[in-house]
Amino acid sequence: MSLLPAPLDRLIVLLSRLPGIGERTATRLAFAALTQGDEYLRDLARSLDEVTDKITYCVSCHMLAESELCGICSDPGREERTLCIVATIPDVMAFERSGAFRGRYHVTHGVLSPLKGIGPSELRLDNLRGRLLDQGVEEVILATPTGVEGEATALYLTRALGDLGLRVTRIATGVPMGGELEYVDPTTLSRALEGRISV
Amino acid sequence: MSLLPAPLDRLIVLLSRLPGIGERTATRLAFAALTQGDEYLRDLARSLDEVTDKITYCVSCHMLAESELCGICSDPGREERTLCIVATIPDVMAFERSGAFRGRYHVTHGVLSPLKGIGPSELRLDNLRGRLLDQGVEEVILATPTGVEGEATALYLTRALGDLGLRVTRIATGVPMGGELEYVDPTTLSRALEGRISV
Repeated sequence: MSLLPAPLDRLIVLLSRLPGIGERTATRLAFAALTQGDEYLRDLARSLDEVTDKITYCVSCHMLAESELCGICSDPGREERTLCIVATIPDVMAFERSGAFRGRYHVTHGVLSPLKGIGPSELRLDNLRGRLLDQGVEEVILATPTGVEGEATALYLTRALGDLGLRVTRIATGVPMGGELEYVDPTTLSRALEGRISV
Repeated sequence: MSLLPAPLDRLIVLLSRLPGIGERTATRLAFAALTQGDEYLRDLARSLDEVTDKITYCVSCHMLAESELCGICSDPGREERTLCIVATIPDVMAFERSGAFRGRYHVTHGVLSPLKGIGPSELRLDNLRGRLLDQGVEEVILATPTGVEGEATALYLTRALGDLGLRVTRIATGVPMGGELEYVDPTTLSRALEGRISV
């Protein structure tokens, strides 16, 4: 017999299903929520229901949205000729926080990974060619992650879009701003050397 | 304007109200839940509602319960003469996992902390003297934490219960089993020396 009341056990089991959350963290979270009191627990449940009911994915870029198109795709102020391909929604948020990009995005929701059985058809790419042609995109920026799988995905996309006559670019890799060279990993450092620019 | 749909923002704000959860972790949790899909989000909301509706605190020991008394207080097989005072519900769980204690508990839901404004009346001690007398308890084991506040709480309880003519004991402090002496902190090591026993 578990020591905890069954409803709390069930909550812990549900929380520990989340990626990166073990039973220990799930227990800590459940207790933290419980300690906030009944009103908090009700608010959290209502909030989850609202997320389920109201949030969907943008039919164009696959970003989160509250209607057919997300805030970025429906914003006429965004520049139409540049499209940035990213692997995840948090990646879009990172670019938006930087304020450095004013075009639109395309979220693949994953990277190619033969070991995990993720091929091109598992990524959200069905409507990508259509978007590029319809919206008159001139440059595609590949901003998939810089690890092995992200690089493979960028390479795949470079080839898959090669016949469209677009400019296809890849975000620069190198030493992060403010990063101490001493602590930068060897691969990043060699990339920074290879990619050196005249000043 | 936030980049995320408002319902998701609201969920993140609620999650970041939990102690120890910053905005970054809250965002990660919200996305992890969202990625599990609608059925998961509904199950989680229902589970939270169930916790709100069904979980209460034991009127006797203040442990979590699904009715007036918790599973331990309503178990006639528990030894009545020993009562272990702990600060939190996870502490009860730790003792129960060890299987070393067969008596009952009393959860104070906190320790004395003048700096945080937590005095004796903020702890769940109202019914403690009554329990000790009614249930014929012969030994009170003080198992509040071994830090400064836990020690102060143990000292307060020793004095407060001094007139009842009970045996009052404190759990032993010392080197943890399997702990390498090299990594044990100086205070623990001096306690282990002071508390040495003949073999």
